[in-house]
Amino acid sequence: MRYQEKAKFDANGLLTAIAQDWKTGKVLMCAFMNQEALEKTVQTGVMTYWSRSRKKLWIKGETSGHTQKVREMRFDCDGDALLCKVEQTGGACHEGWESCFAYKIQGETIVAEEKKLFDPGQVYQKQD
Amino acid sequence: MRYQEKAKFDANGLLTAIAQDWKTGKVLMCAFMNQEALEKTVQTGVMTYWSRSRKKLWIKGETSGHTQKVREMRFDCDGDALLCKVEQTGGACHEGWESCFAYKIQGETIVAEEKKLFDPGQVYQKQD
Repeated sequence: MRYQEKAKFDANGLLTAIAQDWKTGKVLMCAFMNQEALEKTVQTGVMTYWSRSRKKLWIKGETSGHTQKVREMRFDCDGDALLCKVEQTGGACHEGWESCFAYKIQGETIVAEEKKLFDPGQVYQKQD
Repeated sequence: MRYQEKAKFDANGLLTAIAQDWKTGKVLMCAFMNQEALEKTVQTGVMTYWSRSRKKLWIKGETSGHTQKVREMRFDCDGDALLCKVEQTGGACHEGWESCFAYKIQGETIVAEEKKLFDPGQVYQKQD
């Protein structure tokens, strides 16, 4: 089966893409791909998402230099989610964390538990 | 901040929930939670999703016995995705795989690469 046939895009033409550090197994971020982003990612080996806010293709790290090189891509059983093992340069999160999943639920509250890798003000001219 | 304030549900009242094996770091599945599912999961410590196909709360493993005990829950920066580290009993996937992410992209094609943990026909009366 060609990989495009396995992909099941939702009503907005998107599927969920999870980026995981290929070495440490740390889950770095969760965003979206449309068909073009998926094909670009497969062709170039560089994680390319669809930005819902900016309504355009988003080559991760284009502004920040914090790119994600693809090591492995896997669809889930129903084809609406993609797990991408990546080699992350710098931090994945535009807030400066290594992983976007920095906000731990502790009891009934949220605790930011990660140590920032970088200062977003110094890295971004605009949000990546 | 209370954890409910961090949650950003989409137009359908859902957020993305990723389950990851707390020991091995293997990403097991990706599904959805509405507010009730999120609160049940926090309260009970057992992964509870919203089934879009069945339009009801879905306590993972209720039919199969393949439950997911919560070890840690983390929101991402924008609060629309949740990373849940879980203790998985049996396999996460209704097709019998340990992880739903069993379909690797190899070149232009899809290869099912995982070894099945169980025979779905023997475990499910109906899909879990």
